[in-house]
Amino acid sequence: MRQPRLEIEYCTQCRWLLRAAWTAQEMLTTFQAELGEVALVPGTGGVFDVRLDDETIWSRKDQGGHPELVELKRMVRDRIAPGRSLGHSDRARP
Amino acid sequence: MRQPRLEIEYCTQCRWLLRAAWTAQEMLTTFQAELGEVALVPGTGGVFDVRLDDETIWSRKDQGGHPELVELKRMVRDRIAPGRSLGHSDRARP
Repeated sequence: MRQPRLEIEYCTQCRWLLRAAWTAQEMLTTFQAELGEVALVPGTGGVFDVRLDDETIWSRKDQGGHPELVELKRMVRDRIAPGRSLGHSDRARP
Repeated sequence: MRQPRLEIEYCTQCRWLLRAAWTAQEMLTTFQAELGEVALVPGTGGVFDVRLDDETIWSRKDQGGHPELVELKRMVRDRIAPGRSLGHSDRARP
């Protein structure tokens, strides 16, 4: 197991594998040098949770929906690559 | 960390993220109930290694190329779901 480790637990009954795998690929593209690994974890019961090492940074049940990708990237950035710009998606909306 | 854990270490310089992520999704589709997690691990230097828990079941450098998906599935099946049929891809070629 490598750290920092991003873990994405998704509901298989909801068929969220593709969503989880897409999220994983986006994170590994953006944080290629910073992330140790991204793990896809099959779950059930409507789960879509994202954990960075021991911290839950997104839980669909608590937050009431799926994360915006840019929001998730900001949360990961703030923890493992502070000061790093995320490019155009990082600018405040007008 | 969940077990059984399948780990795919891929070379970022070779741009094998898509290949690794595709392999991960295939494995999670076929072994949805059996796999604890699939981890994508960014690496360098031409690596494409697949590990199941502590065992390396594929190493591009040792085997001289990338794995055939059906072959990889057979190896995983034999270890975590023996006796399970893989369907049409599991039949011997004529």
